[in-house]
Amino acid sequence: MSTLANDGRNRQLFMTRFPQGEAGPGDFEVREAPMPEPKDGEVLVEAHYLSVDAALRLIMRDSKDFLFRVQPGDLVRGGVAGKIVESRNPNFKPGDFVTGGLGVQNYAVSDGTGLSKVDTSIAPLPQWLGGMGVSGLTAYFAVTEECKPGPGHTMVVNGAAGAVGSIAGQIGRILGAKVIGITGSDEKGKWLTEELGFDVAINYKKGDLYEQLVKAAPDRINSIFDNVGGDILNESLRWIALRGVVLLCGSTSQYTQEKMEGPSNYIWLGTMRARMQGFVVYDYADKFAAAQAQLAQWVKEGKLVMRENVVDGDVGDFPDVFQRLYHGENRGKMVIRLQAASA
Amino acid sequence: MSTLANDGRNRQLFMTRFPQGEAGPGDFEVREAPMPEPKDGEVLVEAHYLSVDAALRLIMRDSKDFLFRVQPGDLVRGGVAGKIVESRNPNFKPGDFVTGGLGVQNYAVSDGTGLSKVDTSIAPLPQWLGGMGVSGLTAYFAVTEECKPGPGHTMVVNGAAGAVGSIAGQIGRILGAKVIGITGSDEKGKWLTEELGFDVAINYKKGDLYEQLVKAAPDRINSIFDNVGGDILNESLRWIALRGVVLLCGSTSQYTQEKMEGPSNYIWLGTMRARMQGFVVYDYADKFAAAQAQLAQWVKEGKLVMRENVVDGDVGDFPDVFQRLYHGENRGKMVIRLQAASA
Repeated sequence: MSTLANDGRNRQLFMTRFPQGEAGPGDFEVREAPMPEPKDGEVLVEAHYLSVDAALRLIMRDSKDFLFRVQPGDLVRGGVAGKIVESRNPNFKPGDFVTGGLGVQNYAVSDGTGLSKVDTSIAPLPQWLGGMGVSGLTAYFAVTEECKPGPGHTMVVNGAAGAVGSIAGQIGRILGAKVIGITGSDEKGKWLTEELGFDVAINYKKGDLYEQLVKAAPDRINSIFDNVGGDILNESLRWIALRGVVLLCGSTSQYTQEKMEGPSNYIWLGTMRARMQGFVVYDYADKFAAAQAQLAQWVKEGKLVMRENVVDGDVGDFPDVFQRLYHGENRGKMVIRLQAASA
Repeated sequence: MSTLANDGRNRQLFMTRFPQGEAGPGDFEVREAPMPEPKDGEVLVEAHYLSVDAALRLIMRDSKDFLFRVQPGDLVRGGVAGKIVESRNPNFKPGDFVTGGLGVQNYAVSDGTGLSKVDTSIAPLPQWLGGMGVSGLTAYFAVTEECKPGPGHTMVVNGAAGAVGSIAGQIGRILGAKVIGITGSDEKGKWLTEELGFDVAINYKKGDLYEQLVKAAPDRINSIFDNVGGDILNESLRWIALRGVVLLCGSTSQYTQEKMEGPSNYIWLGTMRARMQGFVVYDYADKFAAAQAQLAQWVKEGKLVMRENVVDGDVGDFPDVFQRLYHGENRGKMVIRLQAASA
């Protein structure tokens, strides 16, 4: 085991109590576990990057309504990109890079279910958690299969500087739509328009959001790619176009609320014959490889920018980094680079 | 003009101020107007029945967001079933029965736009405002084109004893679905199950609505036909099935609210890949005749019950009758029968 990086130690992050409001360091605990040993058919994965996703907060709650949830005493769920360090499974060999939902820990054993081998000659490893991973695939299928933008179509992306929103908006542009990004700072807005090619960026903290949307989208909004919920969704809904679509990708503004708030302007769906559509990327699993090839091609052609917001740290830094998501500090995909990544 | 019923006088109902909460008699005023005279190409219609619709309250508000609205000083909008008493338009002759959005008044002149001739040998005149009119057509197209029920499908109708809901639920049953009606009294529930053939009726005022829904629909809800909004929609949403649909037909619980409330459980649309769908019956205008033939056929076969809640009165009684809608007193379509109907 002396070849293992991450100090050769396995730290794991557990949730200790249900968070109130934002989840913070006091809701978690790091425990050191023995190094797991793969049995026949299993592999040992060494985590190099941890995916930090806002949606985690949604399932950290005391509700039986959720199929997937994190309860006090549970290992924190999360996506990992890492390397096979030991294999007793013929589908994987030591040195293979993989991604999978292995949880917030340095090492994990897996029977291969839900593990994906990734090709780091096509994209660097952390990108397989971001633009080439679940975030990018969500953007890709939500936009191409549900929003269906094209010339003459105006698309609004809420949470536009985030991991999914930043890719979704760019795909909208590639397909010919006018894309308006809503974000929480002028700096991020500048990034959207100057580096990612968004047509318009709106800072929802400045001025009347609805008025700004009406100005930016004089012919109303054909699709709303919503990661945020709350007031931002609500004001966008008020300006939905005839037969428009609201793609529900996430509701970050609501995850920390004990009592969530629905969009009162949902009644505009009625008048405008519009629809609010739920979406889960795993429904498209059989088309992931083709989508990843397309995404990589767009990157190569300079049409698509994938950005990771990389923080160096360890398992114990996860709660801090997670909290930053709620303060709108990230651009693109937030990941923690573990020591093993540079070993 | 001596052959005119309704006393040969023309009373009109005007809105005098924006209502606060429920609209009441103090928000309206009856004025007597001169009998209108049709010009070339026009007809004079004598109102026999006034349609009383909850949605009117929605547009009686100080908001420029609405294309159709009623402002202080405006004639109150509303559907009418009546008779042509004078015609200078070749498409209509005296004695023809028609329906149209002529407003709350005894007589109206029209150039024929939006007037529909109706055949009272197929269905009695007031039914052309209800089951054979906009209410029934809304139910028909919403259910057949969007909810698409069939064997194995569970459909929930919110506002099930109302003009649209009572027809929608019966169509769901005819097409093979299990239909659960939500209403506000045991008496109305009994009417739904015993006379209209609903599988289950739930009185939302008794017990936990969500628990009752889970019990009545163990495999979750495939479609929600929503006329109500508010808590009833919200609790139903929490139990939506995979790829389910919420058909937005109306939001009566919200019309009297200055600040409307959105359904916080809209986030279940995401997880369940479900959709909330807006709907406007006029999009199907070219298929109205075929739908009416089908509806009439079902009535003839004893599969569909159309019921009007008829109140004898005049234009000045409209505010009172309108208010009753908010107290859940009606079963089926609420109409006012004017004096001319019995003349």
